[in-house]
Amino acid sequence: MNRSDNTSSEAGRFAYEGLERAIHEKARLGIMTSLVAHADGLLFNDLKDLCALTDGNLSRHLKVLKEAGFVEIWKGQRDNRPQTLCRLTPDGRERFLEYVAELERVVADAASVAEASGKAAAPNKNLLNGWSPA
Amino acid sequence: MNRSDNTSSEAGRFAYEGLERAIHEKARLGIMTSLVAHADGLLFNDLKDLCALTDGNLSRHLKVLKEAGFVEIWKGQRDNRPQTLCRLTPDGRERFLEYVAELERVVADAASVAEASGKAAAPNKNLLNGWSPA
Repeated sequence: MNRSDNTSSEAGRFAYEGLERAIHEKARLGIMTSLVAHADGLLFNDLKDLCALTDGNLSRHLKVLKEAGFVEIWKGQRDNRPQTLCRLTPDGRERFLEYVAELERVVADAASVAEASGKAAAPNKNLLNGWSPA
Repeated sequence: MNRSDNTSSEAGRFAYEGLERAIHEKARLGIMTSLVAHADGLLFNDLKDLCALTDGNLSRHLKVLKEAGFVEIWKGQRDNRPQTLCRLTPDGRERFLEYVAELERVVADAASVAEASGKAAAPNKNLLNGWSPA
């Protein structure tokens, strides 16, 4: 069991301030990853399929990402049909890569522990003598 | 620019269904990572410092995680003062590691693209002939 004096020097160690909320939301994380993987952009319907979203949900999340400056939306035609094209802005791409770098820190934090502590999955019951569940 | 016929076979490729919402929220992700790194548990105040949360926010997020079966909360004493101890349940630990595995897929998806496409950061402007910003 860890004591106050062991952890107080690590204040904010697990705050992960770099996980920007506009990107971190699960559906938007999928949208951003799709778009970074398709640098020239994706048609609305393709993006919808890749992310397994409904029209309404994709529209709503794209609006958030557009207002935050991460994506740009273009209206045009392909094969004589009106289409919507979505792609990352240069700033959106840069900020997404910063976000991913923070995500890598989360994964490294969790993975290093998981490897190192097979036995720690079963903490010593005796430590809880005198404690009661809340 | 990607065409429908290139991407339709990858439906749901970026849906990331494994990103369980109870864990994915930014503050709770910090809490879970703190707790997996301290298998015997953390005192409430230490966890609060590590995650840079207020008392109220930590309480609120712990309640969500407890109700989802990820953490257990114990009341007891240390140094003659009442204390609250938080730790992962075995099931919480297992599901967190599954979540982290999905997070690793996100990072791998994004990182592989970022490395491979330095030039793709500036998409060909000509592709947008005839398209207008929305």
